[in-house]
Amino acid sequence: MSSEINVMESIYSENEKIADELKEELENKNVFSINVLGAPGIGKTSTLIQLIPKIPYKSFVIEGDIASDLDTQKLNALGIQTVQINTGGACHLDSPFIRDAAENLNVQDGIMWIENIGNLVCPAEFFIGEHIKMLIVGVTEGSDKPYKYPLAFEKADVILLNKCDLLPYVDFDEDFFMAGVRKLTNAPVIHISSKSGDGIDEAVNWILSVKK
Amino acid sequence: MSSEINVMESIYSENEKIADELKEELENKNVFSINVLGAPGIGKTSTLIQLIPKIPYKSFVIEGDIASDLDTQKLNALGIQTVQINTGGACHLDSPFIRDAAENLNVQDGIMWIENIGNLVCPAEFFIGEHIKMLIVGVTEGSDKPYKYPLAFEKADVILLNKCDLLPYVDFDEDFFMAGVRKLTNAPVIHISSKSGDGIDEAVNWILSVKK
Repeated sequence: MSSEINVMESIYSENEKIADELKEELENKNVFSINVLGAPGIGKTSTLIQLIPKIPYKSFVIEGDIASDLDTQKLNALGIQTVQINTGGACHLDSPFIRDAAENLNVQDGIMWIENIGNLVCPAEFFIGEHIKMLIVGVTEGSDKPYKYPLAFEKADVILLNKCDLLPYVDFDEDFFMAGVRKLTNAPVIHISSKSGDGIDEAVNWILSVKK
Repeated sequence: MSSEINVMESIYSENEKIADELKEELENKNVFSINVLGAPGIGKTSTLIQLIPKIPYKSFVIEGDIASDLDTQKLNALGIQTVQINTGGACHLDSPFIRDAAENLNVQDGIMWIENIGNLVCPAEFFIGEHIKMLIVGVTEGSDKPYKYPLAFEKADVILLNKCDLLPYVDFDEDFFMAGVRKLTNAPVIHISSKSGDGIDEAVNWILSVKK
């Protein structure tokens, strides 16, 4: 087992080293980077589509998916400069992927959004040069997610609680959810609907308040 | 990189070897095993709660979660014999976990349900001694999931499309979804609601038709 652990440690440290370098490069180019995390189908792309037009900076998007470029097609059709990463099978993005994609996008003076693989587990473990992690969860997922997937919540700088338009039709115990969140983090929790646009202004204001 | 690949290959082959042995042990004990896969909050536990009372065999449940035993508490409260596995941080269950849990449950003459970690990526890669894989997806996740997470669909023996009670309130393009599914698999797709119980009888009948 020790050789397995050594290999895993070396994968982590190589990832961290490149992520540190990348973050410095991004700062030199006046680019603020947001790592967007969340489960499959929780509305990461549709939230970006709501947020980006309201942000007074140029946006660059890196779309992470195991397969397909459906989201990149959507974003490009809206005039948002986007590059697709297909990981083949890998369950998270790592910093070499992001470094190459940022070069490909020729990022400068703006915000670089990284839509990570739809996965509430693995992506939370990897620093990929971002300034902040934005976690998107949803009322359709139930209120027990902070208890079951603590790392994603612990690491989040902001939590967007999406699909609030569906609240009348689902069983979501907000008190239980918030009690779980507050055991892990003091990050703000902003209620949004990526369908109706409700709450998006509040999320934009929060992003602008922390942007360097 | 070759040492990393060798280590990953040895992790896989050790897992497969134990899974093969476990499957044989389960057959000797007349136990049919179902590996339940799906994203976080898609209703894996609530579907088990609907299915199990309608199955005319004794059920044993292995609950996989990164943290917490909330689902095990729910199932035990209903009189369903359940054991919890907490992986700490690992994103999938592997066969040594299942072998130990099956021993702990003292399984014999019945169905062993394995609720895997909520994750549409990693669990699909690991054979853990099961007879069939049951994939649960939902109309709330959008219709593009087969295109983005192909392996989970490819490996599924049956696909339950859950949360159909929410169809009037979400944008779900069933034709696009089914076209994506049919590029990957001929597995049956059964519409269910783990809230209302709709479609559960059909899922039960399918399980009984394949049970050895």
